[in-house]
Amino acid sequence: MHELMIDLDDSLRKPLYRQIYDYIRSHIADGKISCGEKLPSTRLLAAHLQISRSTVSLAYEQLLSEGYLEARRGSGYYASDISELYVGGRTPKKPLRKAKWDGQRLDSACGVEQKYRIVFSPEENDFSQFPYAAWRKLSRELLAVDDPTLFQAGEAAGELTLREAICTYLYHARGVNCTPDQLIIGAGNEYLLMLLMQILGGKRKVAMENPTYRNAYGTLAQMGCDMVLTGMDANGMKTEEIKRHDPDIVYTMPSHQFPTGIVMPLKRRLELLSWAMERPGRYIIEDDYDSEFRYKGKPIPSLQGNDAHGTVIYIGTFSKSISPSIRVSYMALPDALLRAYHANCGFYASTVPKEQQNILAAFLKQGYFERHLNKMRRIYKAKHDLFLSLLKKESWVQKIYGDYAGMHLLVEVKTQKSAARIVDQAKANGVRAYDLEEYRIFGTKRREGAPTLLLGYGALEEDAMREGISILRRVVREENDN
Amino acid sequence: MHELMIDLDDSLRKPLYRQIYDYIRSHIADGKISCGEKLPSTRLLAAHLQISRSTVSLAYEQLLSEGYLEARRGSGYYASDISELYVGGRTPKKPLRKAKWDGQRLDSACGVEQKYRIVFSPEENDFSQFPYAAWRKLSRELLAVDDPTLFQAGEAAGELTLREAICTYLYHARGVNCTPDQLIIGAGNEYLLMLLMQILGGKRKVAMENPTYRNAYGTLAQMGCDMVLTGMDANGMKTEEIKRHDPDIVYTMPSHQFPTGIVMPLKRRLELLSWAMERPGRYIIEDDYDSEFRYKGKPIPSLQGNDAHGTVIYIGTFSKSISPSIRVSYMALPDALLRAYHANCGFYASTVPKEQQNILAAFLKQGYFERHLNKMRRIYKAKHDLFLSLLKKESWVQKIYGDYAGMHLLVEVKTQKSAARIVDQAKANGVRAYDLEEYRIFGTKRREGAPTLLLGYGALEEDAMREGISILRRVVREENDN
Repeated sequence: MHELMIDLDDSLRKPLYRQIYDYIRSHIADGKISCGEKLPSTRLLAAHLQISRSTVSLAYEQLLSEGYLEARRGSGYYASDISELYVGGRTPKKPLRKAKWDGQRLDSACGVEQKYRIVFSPEENDFSQFPYAAWRKLSRELLAVDDPTLFQAGEAAGELTLREAICTYLYHARGVNCTPDQLIIGAGNEYLLMLLMQILGGKRKVAMENPTYRNAYGTLAQMGCDMVLTGMDANGMKTEEIKRHDPDIVYTMPSHQFPTGIVMPLKRRLELLSWAMERPGRYIIEDDYDSEFRYKGKPIPSLQGNDAHGTVIYIGTFSKSISPSIRVSYMALPDALLRAYHANCGFYASTVPKEQQNILAAFLKQGYFERHLNKMRRIYKAKHDLFLSLLKKESWVQKIYGDYAGMHLLVEVKTQKSAARIVDQAKANGVRAYDLEEYRIFGTKRREGAPTLLLGYGALEEDAMREGISILRRVVREENDN
Repeated sequence: MHELMIDLDDSLRKPLYRQIYDYIRSHIADGKISCGEKLPSTRLLAAHLQISRSTVSLAYEQLLSEGYLEARRGSGYYASDISELYVGGRTPKKPLRKAKWDGQRLDSACGVEQKYRIVFSPEENDFSQFPYAAWRKLSRELLAVDDPTLFQAGEAAGELTLREAICTYLYHARGVNCTPDQLIIGAGNEYLLMLLMQILGGKRKVAMENPTYRNAYGTLAQMGCDMVLTGMDANGMKTEEIKRHDPDIVYTMPSHQFPTGIVMPLKRRLELLSWAMERPGRYIIEDDYDSEFRYKGKPIPSLQGNDAHGTVIYIGTFSKSISPSIRVSYMALPDALLRAYHANCGFYASTVPKEQQNILAAFLKQGYFERHLNKMRRIYKAKHDLFLSLLKKESWVQKIYGDYAGMHLLVEVKTQKSAARIVDQAKANGVRAYDLEEYRIFGTKRREGAPTLLLGYGALEEDAMREGISILRRVVREENDN
């Protein structure tokens, strides 16, 4: 039986079961616990660690479900033959993923990325420039009066004042054509998608781009949708593939596809719109998650603004433009779906606290948001320009794309190594970079071509960029047998 | 072709499409429109009623989807053979999905109740005593430092500090036995139910009390659950009916059933728990929405505290104890479901803003919540005692029940009128009272016995109580032909 020398740390934010799980998993992955070796029973290990048995069981069950352990009836737990896991075409780290879509968002939600010194995350923003003073002032003003109405149940679709402010912003900044009545405010895109699927009713077939924003895929799959994936060319989603799959709904990010950065030109947009009009009940979900951040040329107006027939459902968020922690997204519904919303989902109370909605409405109406956005656009543009110029000097960088928008770049690497290997070796050196393939829906065919890294720069300062790049350079050049 | 003599009423709260739908449905159900009879086209009917064609289409589509109408290609709409629908075991009202839960919560969410001078709402609380100063102070302290971590994505299950604070509170106040790891914080009970149904996966058969909290019924129905309803006796949900329906899940409010106020005694609780243990995969959802407010005897500990086998999912909320507008609920999952949560739903970011979670955690940890709760319990008890004494003096009041807890009473009325009639006449006099039957799930058999009003007093001062009661007295005594 293998003796486990686990050093539990109560002070860590990581739960105990997770510490046990991590210890055993890494020891099996490293071969320190070898295939077929018996592990202590949950009872023994719990007694040894002086913790509850259910904590140990939780860790063991997760290891079982991921294939690291095997249970033999009446005998106990044994380390599995993990070499088989690799043969199956999965990368060693892939089985750790509990489900198809628990990618980097889950990591960052759990704070797992905190262990790296430099994180090229596409999800992390720069909050050092947030107008704390303005937010404080608005919050103080809102709470200054003992106002009981602030604590009464609010409007189901969100406070009218906030919906008005968002409408005005969307009209001017994104060419979105809607009234405050058409807007539903909710606690994040995923919640709005849950609501939308209830509004649409019944099982729907949804086509998405691949690679894509995996949380949206996960939400729609969880809500029982029949998911299909379409390839992209330089103009985005391939319409002929959509037609072949014959979905009810297309989910797309036309202004800045995540993670590829592809911008859908007008012609392709019109093709999409005419596909939607061909049959009643077809809809396009336009996820316009970060189009505020374009650094070259004119901003690209929304697809919704081109839609004359009520086929586009527009979804936007303040996660990028303000912060993911404020949990505010919005959705503009076409008339037919608005009626269905009132008929089927009107009883749901808003998921955003009234206090938060009122502060945000004031933040928009009093011009703070606009100023903040312009300031952040300048800051991110400067970071973008610097990061791009640093990368262009690197001889191992073959091609850069997805530039001039958002907060990450895609970097094709001149190497014999796989991107996954580069990512692993960078991790071992304290740097978290991302393989573009991490954003591909699990189990679908890998893209051909050069290994491609996804490198986010939104939260990084110059020093960190330089250091991160130099570590990547070393890793790319190192011999494979390192 | 059948001529439709529909009398549309613009002033009604009921949408026009719904009026058309109701008219046609009831005429088909009554046999006034018989099987195979042709209906006017949407174009014709719209022209006849002078409304938009899309309104008529919406009504027709609903009738089609529920099987009341059939569309014959190129010919038009015909009344279906509905006898088959009944033979199939469905009651005539079952197919009417939409109206089941558009009750009082929707009213208050939309502010519709604001038109009444006195509202005996069971949902409105007294916010005049809210510790605004403390909330302001905590909010100011939180925002005092320019802290970028406040704006970074938070923990998926909710901030650990808040989960710890809630755990401690639940253990001491409600006898709930869980660790912070087991708690999921979410933006309201309905959101948590959406999440829970995804954690449980697949279609489930859920048994609920009737009458009940209709928003929960609505959410579960929307999430695709097969809903069954059980009667109650003086001890709550009838176990033999549960066994007959054979659901996977029982949703119950054992400490203070809404709206009846029934408290489930230990014996019935143990019966429920042993029902759940009989078969793996059975769960009990305990909705403990307002048990903080008991005015007599000891507080009743949670059902979860009696559960030794991980069959109870405990759901609680700050909507009653603080305010519905802060949108914070919590759910304690048994271990097996916790694993499923991490596996399938761990990618969902928390739906509650981090700022709000931190303020609330401080509110709990620094003792403000406890003081506020004790103060509000005294205030609501005083209101309860006063309201009860006022009602006891009324000769038209036959019996009062549901007393000594919560924020509403049930009042049996000595009269020949129906409760619905009393409610209508009171409305005409600027008073909103509630018919207990409004909380019954749409289409189920009405309760026998005296007409019963549901009267909430949480938000009312003495003057309003007295005036409201005197108007109800007049209405009850007035001749029917008024």
